Amino acid sequence: MDQPDFKPKDEGYAARVRDSFALQGAMATLGASLGAIEPGRVVIELPWAAGLTQQHGFLHAGMVATALDSACGYAGFTLMPEGSGVLTIEFKINLLAPAKGQRFRMVGQVIKPGRTVTVTEGRAYAIDDGREKLVATLGATLMTITGRDDVKN
Amino acid sequence: MDQPDFKPKDEGYAARVRDSFALQGAMATLGASLGAIEPGRVVIELPWAAGLTQQHGFLHAGMVATALDSACGYAGFTLMPEGSGVLTIEFKINLLAPAKGQRFRMVGQVIKPGRTVTVTEGRAYAIDDGREKLVATLGATLMTITGRDDVKN
Amino acid sequence: MDQPDFKPKDEGYAARVRDSFALQGAMATLGASLGAIEPGRVVIELPWAAGLTQQHGFLHAGMVATALDSACGYAGFTLMPEGSGVLTIEFKINLLAPAKGQRFRMVGQVIKPGRTVTVTEGRAYAIDDGREKLVATLGATLMTITGRDDVKN
Amino acid sequence: MDQPDFKPKDEGYAARVRDSFALQGAMATLGASLGAIEPGRVVIELPWAAGLTQQHGFLHAGMVATALDSACGYAGFTLMPEGSGVLTIEFKINLLAPAKGQRFRMVGQVIKPGRTVTVTEGRAYAIDDGREKLVATLGATLMTITGRDDVKN
Repeated sequence: MDQPDFKPKDEGYAARVRDSFALQGAMATLGASLGAIEPGRVVIELPWAAGLTQQHGFLHAGMVATALDSACGYAGFTLMPEGSGVLTIEFKINLLAPAKGQRFRMVGQVIKPGRTVTVTEGRAYAIDDGREKLVATLGATLMTITGRDDVKN
Repeated sequence: MDQPDFKPKDEGYAARVRDSFALQGAMATLGASLGAIEPGRVVIELPWAAGLTQQHGFLHAGMVATALDSACGYAGFTLMPEGSGVLTIEFKINLLAPAKGQRFRMVGQVIKPGRTVTVTEGRAYAIDDGREKLVATLGATLMTITGRDDVKN
Repeated sequence: MDQPDFKPKDEGYAARVRDSFALQGAMATLGASLGAIEPGRVVIELPWAAGLTQQHGFLHAGMVATALDSACGYAGFTLMPEGSGVLTIEFKINLLAPAKGQRFRMVGQVIKPGRTVTVTEGRAYAIDDGREKLVATLGATLMTITGRDDVKN
Repeated sequence: MDQPDFKPKDEGYAARVRDSFALQGAMATLGASLGAIEPGRVVIELPWAAGLTQQHGFLHAGMVATALDSACGYAGFTLMPEGSGVLTIEFKINLLAPAKGQRFRMVGQVIKPGRTVTVTEGRAYAIDDGREKLVATLGATLMTITGRDDVKN
């Protein structure tokens, strides 16, 4: 993925991402933690767990999507103004290989920021016996929500 | 969605779906249970839980996707031959409204079965104060896996 | 597809669709014509032509998508206010079977209208020797554009 | 996009792509021509034309998709064995900006080749007054068809 140089509208973007991430019960369930938080790019990491699997013991495609969607959502959120909220309009995921590994690294990145609509891409990597492999790509379209107290982060 | 009349290749399809569902750690984490299992159509239900939320307290889009992906995957699996396994190639989800409710009903349905590739559609309904609302649509493309012992359900 | 009962904001919606359709050079190239125009639902029809094919002589997936995208876009446009314009944010198409036939019928329908974002679904049918067959499904997300003279229809 | 180093199974891949491209009536209608043909990567170029437009005079999203789908399809085709055919299972396109320009460059690239299923990504660039701008991204899933005389390229 190309990585353009984005300028955040709000210097406190990293703290806003951390505060919002801490509110996502789903991230706790995934055992996920935040890695790098840069303008237009966010990394989320998580270990394999039995509670996240599909029937063959691999990470469930939906759990991969959950972590990737958050990585992409927060990548977009870094470029949104203070006081705004972010919602996912849609995402699409391609499962390239079974999500087999001990740890997983999800990278979300903004392709095109916009006042209302932001387009992002994510990549999921499985770390299996020390080797990292691309296992999924995701594209998410986000919406910036402003002026709503119930959707403000 | 149109609902064509599908004939299963294996009369034991419902038991196969139940056995496979029981192996998905992710479904236990979601507190999900199987509803109707018909040829080409499977329903999954789950209650709201704090561990499944995004930052505004709604069901996380990825958790909605996890349940819908399983509903669609098992809808396809009902039409696959005995001894085969099912993998998701890709899926796309549209979030139509915040997934706000006390319970959720996910309906997966086959649009076009195939020997190798099967196309499915899913709909997620939130039940909020007794009223049911369509909150997401998902389209998933599945692959039938045969002759592999590690992907056999 | 469920077909909810939509109320147009502008009674002149059908004329607006016809005027905009006439401006699409791509529709003339496709030999496409408008069928039914109802609130939230638009039909587009076209004949097979050598200039629309892929390498096996079937309708090119992109040409199927072009007609379906217009059908979905105009389905959404029927529910938008006067003076607004419509743009496609994204669409996804599943090719269920080769688009083989003498004529094609594309049905676009609104799933969820919105002030800014509208979600639609489309279905492409091939008519081959008098038999109609579903060959593709498409989901498109639209944006209502207001207050811009260059995007006003 | 990452660009892995792919090895073609058939040294005659470029000729196969050219022969197949020449059979696509849709490419002639678009006025499209082949640019670079490399293992896992194909470029298609076309000029703006009135017959390819939507109602605001920009390139129709479906026409952008037609060219990108061919670029991605042929990118995948470069890595397929001799005698095989390629079909698109599904694709998804995000329109990042209006496709406004005098010329357009479509780059298709393989992300993950497979014996049956190949995943690709494409990017559409508009050249407007000499400046190149990313206007769309597309992800396509392809299927390798073997042993069928009617789908052999």
